[in-house]
Amino acid sequence: MDAPRILVTGGAGYIGSHTAKLLRLDGIEPVVYDNLSTGNRSAVRWGPFVHGDILDTARLVEVIEQYQPAAVIHFAASAYVGESVADPAKYYNNNVRGTLSLLDACRQAGPDKIIFSSSCATYGVPAVLPIDEATRQIPINPYGKTKLMAEHMLADYASAFGLSYVSLRYFNACGADPEGDLGEWHDPETHLIPRALMAAAGKIPHLEVFGNDYDTPDGTCVRDYIHVADLARAHVLAYRHLAKGGANLALNLGTGRGFSIKEVLRAISEVTGNDVPVVFRQRRPGDPPALYANAGLAYETLGFLPYYSDLETIVRTAAPFFGLEARR
Amino acid sequence: MDAPRILVTGGAGYIGSHTAKLLRLDGIEPVVYDNLSTGNRSAVRWGPFVHGDILDTARLVEVIEQYQPAAVIHFAASAYVGESVADPAKYYNNNVRGTLSLLDACRQAGPDKIIFSSSCATYGVPAVLPIDEATRQIPINPYGKTKLMAEHMLADYASAFGLSYVSLRYFNACGADPEGDLGEWHDPETHLIPRALMAAAGKIPHLEVFGNDYDTPDGTCVRDYIHVADLARAHVLAYRHLAKGGANLALNLGTGRGFSIKEVLRAISEVTGNDVPVVFRQRRPGDPPALYANAGLAYETLGFLPYYSDLETIVRTAAPFFGLEARR
Repeated sequence: MDAPRILVTGGAGYIGSHTAKLLRLDGIEPVVYDNLSTGNRSAVRWGPFVHGDILDTARLVEVIEQYQPAAVIHFAASAYVGESVADPAKYYNNNVRGTLSLLDACRQAGPDKIIFSSSCATYGVPAVLPIDEATRQIPINPYGKTKLMAEHMLADYASAFGLSYVSLRYFNACGADPEGDLGEWHDPETHLIPRALMAAAGKIPHLEVFGNDYDTPDGTCVRDYIHVADLARAHVLAYRHLAKGGANLALNLGTGRGFSIKEVLRAISEVTGNDVPVVFRQRRPGDPPALYANAGLAYETLGFLPYYSDLETIVRTAAPFFGLEARR
Repeated sequence: MDAPRILVTGGAGYIGSHTAKLLRLDGIEPVVYDNLSTGNRSAVRWGPFVHGDILDTARLVEVIEQYQPAAVIHFAASAYVGESVADPAKYYNNNVRGTLSLLDACRQAGPDKIIFSSSCATYGVPAVLPIDEATRQIPINPYGKTKLMAEHMLADYASAFGLSYVSLRYFNACGADPEGDLGEWHDPETHLIPRALMAAAGKIPHLEVFGNDYDTPDGTCVRDYIHVADLARAHVLAYRHLAKGGANLALNLGTGRGFSIKEVLRAISEVTGNDVPVVFRQRRPGDPPALYANAGLAYETLGFLPYYSDLETIVRTAAPFFGLEARR
């Protein structure tokens, strides 16, 4: 029997490419569908590559008919919070209309299992921590809104048309392939750990940190960092869950433990031997002091545990891609 | 100077056609854009008609370039709650993708003022009555979700691109043109007052009423009924508000007063002389006992008052379209 296939939209991107690799290691052929607007062709190495846009429903139908995938993992999206405020048109088109285009292609051509890349940005600024999946979702920027809209569309398509799905709400994705095959890249780079590593490596003069007077143990923001290899594993587990007829789910993917920015910087300094030059700036509007998951449901339903998400492993796997050597 | 023009999407429909008439009476030329999927060509009598689909962005751009409207009033949408549960694809495409298509056309070609047909269905089942505009919006069906998504898109496009807008959240639209030019029609007819009139006229054997054991004064559901001529007037006022540089708004359109189903049936009997044969059924899931607006903000901001929304006028204007004579 042929290996089962999974269509991976946005599979040339950061989390998508890590997931494609893990699918292949698990005996599943990833068919990557990506328009390379931010993805990287060289990160597609574990199965066929199709150059296509998520908004092109007819093309998606063709690709599904050609490859007959058993499921879709849907990463293709625009994913910068700040950009989404400045250009919501891009986000509503790529993320909302894009997901609709994919769902309509799936309705036309199969498959009926979808694993969706959602975000803790759908929660906005919750009143209570940790954030569990029953927390009311009140996103505060267009990016978060588009991810929530896509979750609603999935749930309604599932009820009406019998699709099954898992929505995975990532907390702060970070780190790089533990075997060194794939790094973390964004253009522009806006994420904390990559920028901190760039500063530690002297590629940018310093790291800007927004706010050191928050009501947190050391005054800097606390976030829940989860290693990309763990995120990738969760997608494979979600597929296994659906393949054996499991229920539709919306799950947090985090560790349940928050780290402050200063703790992250200390870990970088310990692992690489380089300090991170920092300039503190004023708080940014919309940045809550602390965000971290109740991560229990992903364990209960998928058996998911974040093995790689200690700060040391996160920094150790990411450092080489910024020209830094990990000392341990 | 030429009369100002307004593009009215869905202007061949129930509320759209009443609004088009009122625009014309107000010295504004309504340019109706409608695909006639549910609209009625014969209801377009007060300005040019363009046959087109809301999903066709290129066509919208052409029409905007040709007519140079000062604003858009956006009615075009699918609007049956029950159908939205069975076929969410239709609703996400027509309502969400449709609104996005219109917004993108407006960005390309102007105009920068949009009046949007939203719904009290965006509130879901609120904990507190009356419902004011600050009530959290938690819709419970795909129809309500698509209207809320469109509201979010409007607000985000407004912030980013300088559009201005008024979102009008209708409570229960009903009645017909006081001058007898336009009726109320839906196909299929699912709305209470038209169905009650059909039963009173013997066109259907009886009216089904779902639940007479609710915790309301007479056990039947209480809703806030607003006459279509009042709704139409609110759109004209909203345009005047935006034309003089008024702030973006989201407003309830209701009377602030709820009537039970039995009160409605009594009014029909009094106005037409015909009783409404009724069969009581079990409650339907998702039907809250009572829904009515705090209608104060539309008055404060637009000076809007619902002159036609007493039950007698509602029934008196609607009855002739069902072959019934109003006795008074």
